[in-house]
Amino acid sequence: MTDSQRISRLANTVPPFHVMALLERAQQLAAQGRDIIHLEVGEPDFPCPSPVMAAARHALDLGQTRYTPAAGLPALREIIAADYRDRFGAQVDPARIVVTPGASGALQLALGALLDPGDGVLLCDPGYPCNRQFVRMFGGVPQPMPLQASTGFRPSGDILRSAWGETTRVALVASPDNPTGNRIPAGELNDWARWCRERQGTLIVDEIYQGLCYGAEAETVLAHGDAAWVINSFSKYFGMTGWRLGWLVAPAGAVPAVERLAQNWFLAPGTVAQHAAMAAFSEDTLAIAEQRRQLLARRRTLLLEALPGMGLPVVGDSEGAFYIYVDVSAHTRDSFELCRRLLEEAGVAVTPGLDFGEAHLPERYIRLAYTCDEERLHQALERLARFLERQ
Amino acid sequence: MTDSQRISRLANTVPPFHVMALLERAQQLAAQGRDIIHLEVGEPDFPCPSPVMAAARHALDLGQTRYTPAAGLPALREIIAADYRDRFGAQVDPARIVVTPGASGALQLALGALLDPGDGVLLCDPGYPCNRQFVRMFGGVPQPMPLQASTGFRPSGDILRSAWGETTRVALVASPDNPTGNRIPAGELNDWARWCRERQGTLIVDEIYQGLCYGAEAETVLAHGDAAWVINSFSKYFGMTGWRLGWLVAPAGAVPAVERLAQNWFLAPGTVAQHAAMAAFSEDTLAIAEQRRQLLARRRTLLLEALPGMGLPVVGDSEGAFYIYVDVSAHTRDSFELCRRLLEEAGVAVTPGLDFGEAHLPERYIRLAYTCDEERLHQALERLARFLERQ
Repeated sequence: MTDSQRISRLANTVPPFHVMALLERAQQLAAQGRDIIHLEVGEPDFPCPSPVMAAARHALDLGQTRYTPAAGLPALREIIAADYRDRFGAQVDPARIVVTPGASGALQLALGALLDPGDGVLLCDPGYPCNRQFVRMFGGVPQPMPLQASTGFRPSGDILRSAWGETTRVALVASPDNPTGNRIPAGELNDWARWCRERQGTLIVDEIYQGLCYGAEAETVLAHGDAAWVINSFSKYFGMTGWRLGWLVAPAGAVPAVERLAQNWFLAPGTVAQHAAMAAFSEDTLAIAEQRRQLLARRRTLLLEALPGMGLPVVGDSEGAFYIYVDVSAHTRDSFELCRRLLEEAGVAVTPGLDFGEAHLPERYIRLAYTCDEERLHQALERLARFLERQ
Repeated sequence: MTDSQRISRLANTVPPFHVMALLERAQQLAAQGRDIIHLEVGEPDFPCPSPVMAAARHALDLGQTRYTPAAGLPALREIIAADYRDRFGAQVDPARIVVTPGASGALQLALGALLDPGDGVLLCDPGYPCNRQFVRMFGGVPQPMPLQASTGFRPSGDILRSAWGETTRVALVASPDNPTGNRIPAGELNDWARWCRERQGTLIVDEIYQGLCYGAEAETVLAHGDAAWVINSFSKYFGMTGWRLGWLVAPAGAVPAVERLAQNWFLAPGTVAQHAAMAAFSEDTLAIAEQRRQLLARRRTLLLEALPGMGLPVVGDSEGAFYIYVDVSAHTRDSFELCRRLLEEAGVAVTPGLDFGEAHLPERYIRLAYTCDEERLHQALERLARFLERQ
């Protein structure tokens, strides 16, 4: 009876993350006593910053575990707005900020508020794999925007304009992005957003890696205007992954509808998480985040200096986030198979290109996340070098 | 520019909770120094149980704030399965349990895994208002199942079978339910689930008020078979509202697809919330929950004894949850207007019938939530009596 039950097309066609199969195998190997170096996880090895933890404890002491308003604690929305002003010089009315269960919740709200069935959404290929599933949730049509290796998989205004079609309603761009770490200047993003608006369309800018920039200042499209919708998260820069808290910035006119959707879909984001996040923009937390950014910068340099000499050219800028997208085509025609063997034979877990789209020749690429310390990265590079020598 | 932006039909047509306008006005009045008695909120006045809080603190001490697997901590899934066995005599494989961001997340997963656009979903009218919005999210068609006041708004196998139409794929029933507190015997629910299965359809049973029963034992449809999908929550019985944690029990064959959806949509439920919930089924927490159930039972009795004598007959059993659905048609033709005046003139906030559906003559009803203590309930009854005398 169980297996004969009809499952939706949505559920039947949602692809697994390919890295999950590798992760499961990595766990098996670890259980057998193998030492596995994890370069596949999009979660740094740093603990949640102590001021954030202290704020969480304080909330528990005060018994703050009841429902909050659907759009989040007013005080948290104020603090986020103040941070836009203080760190980025952007004027954002707190009323435009909706706190959400992770950036995932923010993306669901944004696309739910913008898409009718059949509407097209431009998605970078390569890009974050879950985006496609949010588009499909609402009957939207993912329209892959294949980027070119020759330009480091960087999107551009020209690519956006020529990809925008009859049915396109939304374009989604991340800066810094996943998997390449590319950054797009915020002023340019605002131009794109205005261009989309002129077509009654919308640019959504994913800024969840905001702050994690190397060699350039962190920025926001919101400092240049209010044409774009923005999603953000406490997960990455503020080290709050497991708290599942993010936010959406939408135009004032759209917020009442967005809030009603949030009421119905989420009731509210987690309460202790929100109180914890109140400490995210404190001087102490920002100092910790900056120290960590500097550590990540060293790890990044370490990899960027070593990889090309191993016949592993890096694609894109790797200027932000904590990812490096690597061309392995000199060693294999099937990067997924390379990932599998790298795990089995060398004990190094990485993510295959296939998880980031099908249109950009993903079989040529793997993604490395520098989310473990320099000693482990050195070990990983040694294992990688030995593995490649044996090919 | 902002206001001219096109918003989706979904966002344009999502109705507000009518109680929210009343809540906002209640806050204004409170800010003016008025004493408002809150009988509108679906959240009891009890704090989160101390063993749950202690488990949350312990998780913070151990730094447990990183991502968990998408389906939740394996240990938590095991504990939920053990509780099904210990308290309800139900055999549920932990692999069938997916931990979610609130029961909201569970409902989103269940409907996303079951609905194709155009599929019909039978929803009780009166019933929980957000259900319609989850159906619409996936392009499904809410099919209201108007229940009869003459039978206390109780659904029945006959009503279900006659409402099931050509396009119906899913029926959603809560037990105990909101807003009437009606219970449906679990064995009967299982029969309905089997009947739905025979039509390649699915019965989803909402058991989020499980445990909150008066005069009958708490039960689960899962003790009678595995034909139904079940959603549940730590919010109500375990007093964990702001932690936003629930779960879904799905047939084994559907779980891999459900897990992939959860990976893409949520990444994972909140980590500290999950560790806190590990203490929900402990002997100490269950003892606290039982004490609270007894307090709720006294509040319920207090209201049930007083209301009919005030010309306010109660509809339905009020056998579970913490709601009483009251017929106010002897006093008004417009229960929403009554709610508004009750707030303004008597300082008592209640929920209008309109929030629970449009097909059951909602203008005749209001919902009282006995989520404040007996002293406040006495005050509320006095205010209500004086208000009605003035009519």
